[in-house]
Amino acid sequence: MTDLTGFFNPRSVAIAGASQKPGKIGNAILKNIISSGFKGAIYPVNPKADEIEGLPCYPDIGAIQEAPELVVVAVPAARTLDLAKACGEKGVKHLVVITAGFKEVGREGLELEKKLVEVCSSYQMNMLGPNCVGMMNTHANLNASFSATYPARTGDITFISQSGAMLVAILDWSVLTGLNFSKVVSLGNKAQLNEADFIAAAANDPTTKVILCYIEDVANGDYFLDVAERATRKKPVIILKSGTSQAGAMAASSHTGALAGSDLAYETAFNQCGIIRAHSMPELFDLAVVFAEQPVPPNRNVAVVTNAGGPGIVATDTVETKGLAMARFTKDTIDALRQSLPAESNIYNPVDVLGDAGADRYQTALEKVLADPSVGSAVVLVCPTAVTDPVPTARAIVDLHQKHPDKPVLAAYMGGPMLAPGAKLLSEAGIPCFTFPEPAINAISGMSRYSEMKARPEERRETTINADHETVKNIFEHARQDGRLVLLGSEAYQAATAYGIPAAPVLLAASPDQAVQLAEQIGFPVVLKVASPKIMHKTDVGGVLIGLKSAAEVRRGYIEITENIQRYLPDVIIHGIEIQKMMPKGTELIVGMSRDVQFGPLIAFGLGGIYVNLMKDVSFRLARGLTEKEIQKMLTETKAYTLLKGYRGEQPADISAIVDIIARTARLVTDFSEITELDINPIFAYPEGASALDIKITVS
Amino acid sequence: MTDLTGFFNPRSVAIAGASQKPGKIGNAILKNIISSGFKGAIYPVNPKADEIEGLPCYPDIGAIQEAPELVVVAVPAARTLDLAKACGEKGVKHLVVITAGFKEVGREGLELEKKLVEVCSSYQMNMLGPNCVGMMNTHANLNASFSATYPARTGDITFISQSGAMLVAILDWSVLTGLNFSKVVSLGNKAQLNEADFIAAAANDPTTKVILCYIEDVANGDYFLDVAERATRKKPVIILKSGTSQAGAMAASSHTGALAGSDLAYETAFNQCGIIRAHSMPELFDLAVVFAEQPVPPNRNVAVVTNAGGPGIVATDTVETKGLAMARFTKDTIDALRQSLPAESNIYNPVDVLGDAGADRYQTALEKVLADPSVGSAVVLVCPTAVTDPVPTARAIVDLHQKHPDKPVLAAYMGGPMLAPGAKLLSEAGIPCFTFPEPAINAISGMSRYSEMKARPEERRETTINADHETVKNIFEHARQDGRLVLLGSEAYQAATAYGIPAAPVLLAASPDQAVQLAEQIGFPVVLKVASPKIMHKTDVGGVLIGLKSAAEVRRGYIEITENIQRYLPDVIIHGIEIQKMMPKGTELIVGMSRDVQFGPLIAFGLGGIYVNLMKDVSFRLARGLTEKEIQKMLTETKAYTLLKGYRGEQPADISAIVDIIARTARLVTDFSEITELDINPIFAYPEGASALDIKITVS
Repeated sequence: MTDLTGFFNPRSVAIAGASQKPGKIGNAILKNIISSGFKGAIYPVNPKADEIEGLPCYPDIGAIQEAPELVVVAVPAARTLDLAKACGEKGVKHLVVITAGFKEVGREGLELEKKLVEVCSSYQMNMLGPNCVGMMNTHANLNASFSATYPARTGDITFISQSGAMLVAILDWSVLTGLNFSKVVSLGNKAQLNEADFIAAAANDPTTKVILCYIEDVANGDYFLDVAERATRKKPVIILKSGTSQAGAMAASSHTGALAGSDLAYETAFNQCGIIRAHSMPELFDLAVVFAEQPVPPNRNVAVVTNAGGPGIVATDTVETKGLAMARFTKDTIDALRQSLPAESNIYNPVDVLGDAGADRYQTALEKVLADPSVGSAVVLVCPTAVTDPVPTARAIVDLHQKHPDKPVLAAYMGGPMLAPGAKLLSEAGIPCFTFPEPAINAISGMSRYSEMKARPEERRETTINADHETVKNIFEHARQDGRLVLLGSEAYQAATAYGIPAAPVLLAASPDQAVQLAEQIGFPVVLKVASPKIMHKTDVGGVLIGLKSAAEVRRGYIEITENIQRYLPDVIIHGIEIQKMMPKGTELIVGMSRDVQFGPLIAFGLGGIYVNLMKDVSFRLARGLTEKEIQKMLTETKAYTLLKGYRGEQPADISAIVDIIARTARLVTDFSEITELDINPIFAYPEGASALDIKITVS
Repeated sequence: MTDLTGFFNPRSVAIAGASQKPGKIGNAILKNIISSGFKGAIYPVNPKADEIEGLPCYPDIGAIQEAPELVVVAVPAARTLDLAKACGEKGVKHLVVITAGFKEVGREGLELEKKLVEVCSSYQMNMLGPNCVGMMNTHANLNASFSATYPARTGDITFISQSGAMLVAILDWSVLTGLNFSKVVSLGNKAQLNEADFIAAAANDPTTKVILCYIEDVANGDYFLDVAERATRKKPVIILKSGTSQAGAMAASSHTGALAGSDLAYETAFNQCGIIRAHSMPELFDLAVVFAEQPVPPNRNVAVVTNAGGPGIVATDTVETKGLAMARFTKDTIDALRQSLPAESNIYNPVDVLGDAGADRYQTALEKVLADPSVGSAVVLVCPTAVTDPVPTARAIVDLHQKHPDKPVLAAYMGGPMLAPGAKLLSEAGIPCFTFPEPAINAISGMSRYSEMKARPEERRETTINADHETVKNIFEHARQDGRLVLLGSEAYQAATAYGIPAAPVLLAASPDQAVQLAEQIGFPVVLKVASPKIMHKTDVGGVLIGLKSAAEVRRGYIEITENIQRYLPDVIIHGIEIQKMMPKGTELIVGMSRDVQFGPLIAFGLGGIYVNLMKDVSFRLARGLTEKEIQKMLTETKAYTLLKGYRGEQPADISAIVDIIARTARLVTDFSEITELDINPIFAYPEGASALDIKITVS
């Protein structure tokens, strides 16, 4: 892992391209470093000035008496290569390249960017950017960016953004809200350091509690997954990934030249490595505040305390929609609430302390529900009434949360000026306070999801699978020599069998005699299919015959198919006729693979048969590090699973056999990166075992 | 329709239970009426005072020289009946009963409430409440409520709320936001006047542009649908309906005693009558602001103008997720943008005017895209940069919107203090300004949906259906006399046939001889089924035989089934054996009906067969006023429709036959309210015609 301690906590900082002119980026950066209160040495570098902003100015990096630990680069793009070399020679460790005019402007820029990376790598220098806003470390009083905004309060959120403008916008907005930052990083073009480097650094940073990212892509799927898998076990990593829509991805690639992976792969990858995915900017920042200020809830059961029925119902609806549960209080809690609240109060959840409740009644109710062992979190709703005590109520909430620091407490102060002082008190005391109940409950839902993901088993080793690698390699080579990229059915059968995937035998016959011999070998009844990857819908051209029960039928069938093909498709080359053992009907399933540019093979499982595309009953997992446990979870996400368990009194299917097929398929496509597509459809699942009926493999 | 003109614009108002004591509700109401600037006569009524708040006080309603047009009631619950009678005698037209202690406190309260309604009805008085906060009409300077908040600015939103607390909360919150109200109504227990009365009044109110509701249930489904169907053709009606979750509905009923209809019925009803459903409080009020301030977009194509790539991508993603489309500019627009923007700008949608854009560049870009005939709406995103001109940019947006008043223009000023003055200018000038892009685009999506719903065909007449009502009536009576609520297959077949629903004939045989005779009558092959509504899974007990091709097989089958039942279920009464014509296999569909407490019969259509519950491929419509056009739309919402159109080269099914079956089913269940459940599963759809195979009808 890249060590970024010095990057964020440099002893000294030089600003290459520092400028005397207000409004120039090179001036803004220098002013920001000075005004943020940075304690180390600051070296403006500019051959045309002697002094800038009261500091002595150096003509070049070499002229500085020491090697500055960090150099912020704001020179024109054309001069960056020379500057980087000078920094390398001097012994600089870290660069922040603000300068634009690289990958984002086209091919020439991309070439320049590659050269810049080469220079940095040759001197083992870390480089952020180019084309970025810079970075901040509030704990080192360092604002090495040209952003005019700077967080007023230091805090424990690390915010990593692939959009510089969004980063500045959020910094400005944070002044109005409870977002306090530890580190802020503008990724720019991610030519060298990327989001994964900073996630890794933040995971090990004692001043970071929450890692927040806005990204448009990941630079390196494998590295990202490795880092995220470990980071999410330590701290919440919340990501807003844009470019999820087709149009959005187009906008993304015209913007940064980023090659956006398919959203499905991102969704799957994030889920598998424990990342909380935010689906909008408001959600991203709501989650950030709540994760930064509150503990993760011990369970999904939410208690709601309200002074009005309507908002209580709205909150209850949201609890259910967001996959949480309304806490069921213990008898002790209910008794205690009954004794201490007015008779008309609702003492079940949501607890309604009534419109005439002052702070004391909120205090009583919240105290009792937080003490209930079944309650995992609490949301307090306050509507303005003639007797509402927004500030004392806020104080009571803060006190009670201190007594129960292990349970998150959130508030929705539903109103404006009448409640504002109370809302302010809450926010400042670390109780996230919303205007409406829904975002509060949505944030608890995010925390609950994280809590469950954090508890996922450590071990993600793949099951050991005995596989005959050599056989598959030979099959692929043979097909390629033969000029085919789509394997014949008999080849696919052999490849699957080599990896222990149970399949109905498929043998290739080149003559009627051989067909009969092979049919007798595998046993009747059999299916005959024309062997030709070029023919997509074999049935439509009379290329398939099923249920042949004797040597005579097979012989006749061979001739019939051959004639049919000659009649319908006289120009198509056929490789013979495939003889397949006819299997008893089972539950039809599909297992497939598509390969994602970023995250590699993506395994699909679901209902099989001819209606696959209509039903779209499919769940996905990355093949990478796929465990048996994860495959089992994958199955449960489909309707197919309901069938496999035994639907409407039918006998359950052999689920372990299906799990095994998926594990072996994942292994096969991981071992052979030349498999570009793989579909097993249908697989018949039986009460004992399963059998692949039709296997399609395409290689590159 | 109830005329509420005088209710909202009374010449005179009396306050029964007016009080001298500050803090008392009877004092708060009087003060509010006075301080809101009401111009008509104000009569405090209280036997114990001579003067309150500087006005002469009357001992009772009768003592007032004229009949006050509106009386606000704040006397104790026990005195409300006498008071209402006195009002009626005096000739009062409208009551607002603030007093609590009715339905919401239990059975006695409910009795009192019923009596109060009786009194009001007997004098033809309108009554709002009881147990409500009151009402406001800003255009008459009338705040007849005990809410301490009062909207500062009059506007054109009518807000109708079943939660008084939420209403007060929103009034307080509106001070901070752009919500300006025309009428505000707290529904309370809805004992007499209900949400539909006020929606109808608001629809005809020239000072109302948008109708906003928070409800927990509707009082009368039919009346609500009638009113909403008409109101939504005039103005947007936006509703947040709570109690959608199971837990939420429980909270709702413990709160108001409201009988919450199932959410599915609400969802269907809202869709069918053109209501925009908000799914959260933030969404409800975002929609309110946007509908109040902006025109409805002419089409779904959104243009985005931004000074930063990242937010542009986020906006593009949201456009797609929310069912909108990114506008594709005409060549003229693209050329004009190319000529007037810097070379590095993105001139396609989203238009990126770059980080160094001032107001002029925004002006240029927005002017061009608004002039593009393909653009239906525009969203302007502004991130803070060193050169951002938030206020001049805002002015440019306002000016351009005035030039294109037919296209909605929204803004997201992404930041805090740096952008606040610009955001304020926009809000005040009627351009809704958000912090993040997503809520802006979501609001446009709501407007687009409304625009499409508003354009729905006027004619909602049901198709004329010839139906033999008498036959069905007799079948039901016969079954009831026989002590059965579930019809026999042969009865259900007759009932369906009487309504013109094509079905495979089912005849009931009481002996082997009769079975043979009936089988010969309908033609072989036939199916035999034991006729006993008590036996759920007939196949499991050997109660079904299929594909019987001769008289001999039928005779043997009759005996076999009888013996099987005697063996497995010796105590079950069987009504004979049903002979059904065996039909060729078609696409399996289901048509069903469940009856909603509020909205009546709900018709379901989807994929049929034994996997119905697994696939859950079903769309719903209210039977009420169901047109052929609507049924056709209903079909297209399912996967079944893809099959019917001819999936994977199969012959298309006879869709008009399916539409006809649904129309006839809707008519049947509408004509016979005693049908509590109806399931036709499967229906076989053929290239020509369709046939109901299994019809289950339960009557009450």
